[in-house]
Amino acid sequence: MSVVLGPNRYGKAEVRCVRVSKHGERHEISDLNVTSLLSGDMEAVHYKGDNANILPTDTQKNTVYAFAGEGVGEIEHFALRLARHFVDDLEPISHARVEISEYPWARLAADGHPHPYAFMREGSYERTCLVHYDNGSTSVVSGITNLGLLKTTESEFWGYINDPYTTLQETRDRIFATLVTAQWLHTEEVDWGRSFAEAKRLLLETFARHYSLSVQQTMYEMGKALIEAQPEIAEVRLSLPNKHHFVVDLSPFGQENENVVFHADDRPYGLIQATISRDDAPAPGVAFD
Amino acid sequence: MSVVLGPNRYGKAEVRCVRVSKHGERHEISDLNVTSLLSGDMEAVHYKGDNANILPTDTQKNTVYAFAGEGVGEIEHFALRLARHFVDDLEPISHARVEISEYPWARLAADGHPHPYAFMREGSYERTCLVHYDNGSTSVVSGITNLGLLKTTESEFWGYINDPYTTLQETRDRIFATLVTAQWLHTEEVDWGRSFAEAKRLLLETFARHYSLSVQQTMYEMGKALIEAQPEIAEVRLSLPNKHHFVVDLSPFGQENENVVFHADDRPYGLIQATISRDDAPAPGVAFD
Amino acid sequence: MSVVLGPNRYGKAEVRCVRVSKHGERHEISDLNVTSLLSGDMEAVHYKGDNANILPTDTQKNTVYAFAGEGVGEIEHFALRLARHFVDDLEPISHARVEISEYPWARLAADGHPHPYAFMREGSYERTCLVHYDNGSTSVVSGITNLGLLKTTESEFWGYINDPYTTLQETRDRIFATLVTAQWLHTEEVDWGRSFAEAKRLLLETFARHYSLSVQQTMYEMGKALIEAQPEIAEVRLSLPNKHHFVVDLSPFGQENENVVFHADDRPYGLIQATISRDDAPAPGVAFD
Amino acid sequence: MSVVLGPNRYGKAEVRCVRVSKHGERHEISDLNVTSLLSGDMEAVHYKGDNANILPTDTQKNTVYAFAGEGVGEIEHFALRLARHFVDDLEPISHARVEISEYPWARLAADGHPHPYAFMREGSYERTCLVHYDNGSTSVVSGITNLGLLKTTESEFWGYINDPYTTLQETRDRIFATLVTAQWLHTEEVDWGRSFAEAKRLLLETFARHYSLSVQQTMYEMGKALIEAQPEIAEVRLSLPNKHHFVVDLSPFGQENENVVFHADDRPYGLIQATISRDDAPAPGVAFD
Repeated sequence: MSVVLGPNRYGKAEVRCVRVSKHGERHEISDLNVTSLLSGDMEAVHYKGDNANILPTDTQKNTVYAFAGEGVGEIEHFALRLARHFVDDLEPISHARVEISEYPWARLAADGHPHPYAFMREGSYERTCLVHYDNGSTSVVSGITNLGLLKTTESEFWGYINDPYTTLQETRDRIFATLVTAQWLHTEEVDWGRSFAEAKRLLLETFARHYSLSVQQTMYEMGKALIEAQPEIAEVRLSLPNKHHFVVDLSPFGQENENVVFHADDRPYGLIQATISRDDAPAPGVAFD
Repeated sequence: MSVVLGPNRYGKAEVRCVRVSKHGERHEISDLNVTSLLSGDMEAVHYKGDNANILPTDTQKNTVYAFAGEGVGEIEHFALRLARHFVDDLEPISHARVEISEYPWARLAADGHPHPYAFMREGSYERTCLVHYDNGSTSVVSGITNLGLLKTTESEFWGYINDPYTTLQETRDRIFATLVTAQWLHTEEVDWGRSFAEAKRLLLETFARHYSLSVQQTMYEMGKALIEAQPEIAEVRLSLPNKHHFVVDLSPFGQENENVVFHADDRPYGLIQATISRDDAPAPGVAFD
Repeated sequence: MSVVLGPNRYGKAEVRCVRVSKHGERHEISDLNVTSLLSGDMEAVHYKGDNANILPTDTQKNTVYAFAGEGVGEIEHFALRLARHFVDDLEPISHARVEISEYPWARLAADGHPHPYAFMREGSYERTCLVHYDNGSTSVVSGITNLGLLKTTESEFWGYINDPYTTLQETRDRIFATLVTAQWLHTEEVDWGRSFAEAKRLLLETFARHYSLSVQQTMYEMGKALIEAQPEIAEVRLSLPNKHHFVVDLSPFGQENENVVFHADDRPYGLIQATISRDDAPAPGVAFD
Repeated sequence: MSVVLGPNRYGKAEVRCVRVSKHGERHEISDLNVTSLLSGDMEAVHYKGDNANILPTDTQKNTVYAFAGEGVGEIEHFALRLARHFVDDLEPISHARVEISEYPWARLAADGHPHPYAFMREGSYERTCLVHYDNGSTSVVSGITNLGLLKTTESEFWGYINDPYTTLQETRDRIFATLVTAQWLHTEEVDWGRSFAEAKRLLLETFARHYSLSVQQTMYEMGKALIEAQPEIAEVRLSLPNKHHFVVDLSPFGQENENVVFHADDRPYGLIQATISRDDAPAPGVAFD
C-alpha cells in the first residue's frame, strides 16, 4: 500500500474587486467577488514542498486587479479572460476554474434623473458565473443566487406519502417563500448581459405565474422556461430552500387565522434541488463543479 | 457591603412575524422581526427566583402574533399598541421597549402589471422602529438600517492631523461607500408611512447631491435634511461605517490606475457616528436606548 | 429653529492585530480585534468638512500596530495605553473609547508536551475590555462574550403571570442553554489576567452549581459571585439569551419523551439582562457605553 | 428538442436535534444538525406536481426526532440508521444522503470534579459525517470542520513561479493559520468514536510537527497520516484556507517588525484543496458529494 495524491486545486478566494468605468461624468460600477482555482502538475509541491510549479495565490489576486485595469465587461467574459490567461500563459497550469459573483447597484435619482455616479445596493441577490478552461475545452455557467421570492397564495401541498412518522396536515393554500440559486450552462458564447437579464426575468415571471402543487413542480417550470427561451442553454440546476412560514394557531386567543399570520422559521428548512436539461444536451462534465 | 440589583429588563427577541392582508385578490405583506423587553418590579425574580411578576417571554411572543391577527399597519403603530398593552394591562410591568425591523418586499410584475400576490425581496435595507412606553410617557424612534450607498467620486479627504503615526496620503477623489443606519425621534405621532418614505428619499438624495469633504460632513447634512423637512423630528442619530475601497497599485504591471480599480476591504473599517438635533429639541431620555 | 450637532465620535473599527511574543523557542500569541472611537472639538468637520481636528482612522489603525510592536500584555493594559495616547498626545481629542476582543488559542500537544508555537482555537468565547479615558478620568470594564453554557437539568420555570395570551406550560425540569455576555467595571487597576481568570471560573462554576428557578435568578447569582470575590469590581452587567430547547412531542410515534429529545430553536429567543452592583458602588458614568 | 428532468433530490436541512442520555445523575449530550436528502422516482412531482412519491420534508424531520428517541450514539451510526430506514422502508425512495454535524460540549468542573450535567461549548470545530445509502450500497465519510489551527513559525514559501504579475516577496518564516475541513472515507464500519478521536489527534499532531514549505505539503502530510494510521480509511479530502497574516510595516514609526506584529486579513484568502488516497482504494463514487 502507498499513499497517493488525487485531484487537487488551489487558488485565491474572494478577491473583492470593484471596477469603475468613467464615460465623461457618467460612471458605471462592477462590484465583484472573484475566486480562481488552478490545477496542473502539482505532485512536487504536495510530496516535497517544491513550489516551482506554483503560481502564488497572491499573484492570482494581482492578475485579477491587473486584468480589471483593462476593463471588466460582463462577468462571464472577464472570467474567460482570466481562465485562458492562467492556462495558456503558464506552462504548469492545465486547468483553471474562475468563479465570480457580482453585486448589483442601482443608480440613485436626483432631480428626477438617474444620478451619474451615486448608487444604492439593489436587491439582495447576486449575479454569478463559473468558468472552467482546460487546454481548449471551455465551459461557461451563468447564474443567480440569494434571490428572495415569496408568494402569499397559489401554493398547495397534499397527496404525499403517509407513513408512521407523518404528522403534517395537507394544505390547499400556503405561503411559498424561497431563496433561489439557479445556474445554467451555455453551449456557446452569447450576449451574456442580455442572456442574464432574460433569464432573471423568466425566473421571476414563472415563479409569479405558476400555480404550485409542489416546490419541485414550480422549480421544474422555472428551469424549463429558461431552456425553452434560450437555445444556447443546455442545462439548468436549481436549488430552492423551502423557507417555512407556519400558520400560527390563534384559537387560544379567540381568533381564527385564515392564512394571515405566520411564523417565519429559520431552521430546519426544506431543500429542493434538480437538474433540468435539453434532451439532446451534451454531458456537462465538470461545468458545475 | 451588599450586592444589589440595578436596571434590568427581559423579553422575547426576534419574533419573526409575517402578516398578510388580503383585499380581494390583492395581498399586502408585512415581514417583521419584533423584540419586546419589559421592566418593572423584578426584585423577587432575581433574588429568589419567584416568577410571580414575570410575563413569560413565550407569552410576549403570543401577544405579538395575536395583535398581528388584528392587523399590523405601520410598524410604529404596531409597536405602540404592543407597548401600551404590556404596561397598561399588566400590573407588574411599568416599562415596555418594543423594537421592530421590517423587511421590504417589492411586487413582481406579470404581463406588465404588478402581481397581486407575488413578491421579491427589495433592497438589502430594513425599516426599523423603537418605542418606549413608561406609564404614559411615550417615545417613538423611526429608522432605517443596512442601507448600502456608494459614490464613485465627489468625495475628498485632506487637511487632517499629521502625527508620528500618519502614513495616509491626502486625496481629492475617492470612493465613498457606506451602510447607513439612521434613527430619528418624533415629538408627536405622524403619518408614519409618509414620514418614513420622505426620510428615506432625503437620505438618498442628500447622499447623492452632497460634495463630501469628510464622512462627518455628509452625515451631518443627511441628518439636517431630515430635521428641516419634518418639524416633528427632534433628533437624528446616524452611524456610517466607512467601507474602504483602496486604489490598487497597478504600476508593477505597467498600468496607471486613475481611480478605477479598487480593493473593497472588509476590516478594519471607519466608523462615524453623530447626533443631530433641533436646538430646541427636548432631551431624548431613553428614546434611543 | 436651527440644527445643531450633538454627541459624536469616530474611529477605526475591528483592527485585527495579531502579536506574537517570542521567548526563545516558546511563543505566545495575542489575537486581537481593536476598535478606537475618539471625540473632541468636532464642530468644524461636521459643519464645514474641515478636517484640521481629525486624526484619520487610518492613523488610529497604525497606532494600534505601532503600540503592539512595543508589546501587548493584558488587553486592559493595551487599551489604556492607546486611550491615554490619543487624549494626552493629540490636542483636539478629549475623549477616547477603546474596545478590544481577544480570541483565545490553546497550545497544541506534541510528544505529550505543550507545543512551543502551534495552537488551536480554544472555545468559542472571546475575552473583552472597554476603556474610556477623558482628560484624567478613566474607566475599565472587563468582560467575556459568546460563552456557550448548557445544563440538562436543575432548571425550572413556573409560578409566572397567567394572562389571556398565556399558553406556556409550567415546567420543573428543562434545558437551560445560553450564550453569556458579561461585563464588569473595576474601581481600580488590578492584575487583569488573574482577575479575568477568576471571573471566568466563577461564572462557569456558579452556572454549574446553581439550581435555577428562573434565568434572572441564575444570572443574578453569577453577577453576585463576581462582586463578592473581587472587591475591585463595582458593577456587573449580564446579558443572557435563553436559547430555547423544546421537548419534541414523540407521542404520535408511540414514544414518551422524558426530557431527552429536544429541538434547539434559533429564533425567537428569550433575552434577559441585568445590572448587579455593590450598594456603595459609584455611578458607572459612560463606562459601559 | 424536449426538456427533461435530470438528477434531483430533496429533503430537510438543518434539523437541530439535541439528545440527552441520562445514566443516573450523569448526563451525556448529543448536539446535532441533521440534513437528509432523498432521491427516487420523482418524475411525477416535477412534471405534474403529483406528490404521491414524496415523503414530506416535515416527515423526514419527525423521523430524525423519533429515531433520536431510541438513542443516537455515534453520528455515523445514527446517519446509517436514518438512511437505511428511508430507502428500505419507503418504496419510492431509492437513495438517501444523510449529513450530520455534531457540536462538541465539554463538561464543566465543580469542586474539582467533572460536573454531571453542566457543559460548556468546546472549541469552535464540528465533527461531521456524510452517509449515502442506495439499495444496499453504503458509503460513510467522517470528518471535522472549522478546526482553527495556527503556527507562529516553521512555515516557509519560496521558489514559486515568477511572472509579470508577481509582487510577493519570498519568505522563510511566516504565520500559518487555517480553518481545516477534513473528510475521510471508510471502507468498512469501524468504532466510529475511536476512529474520529484518533483522526483528530493526528490532524493536530501532524500540523504541529510538520515543518511547512507549502500549505500543500502540510495538507498532504495530514491526509497521509490519517491513511497510514487507519487501514479502513481509503481516501481523505482536505480543504485548507490560508488565512493570511501580513507582517505590518512598522518602519515609518521607527520600529523593526521581526515577524511579531501581523494584520489578520479576512478576504481574499488562499484556498488549498486535495484528495489523498491509498493507491489501492476503490473509486469513491458519490461518497463525498
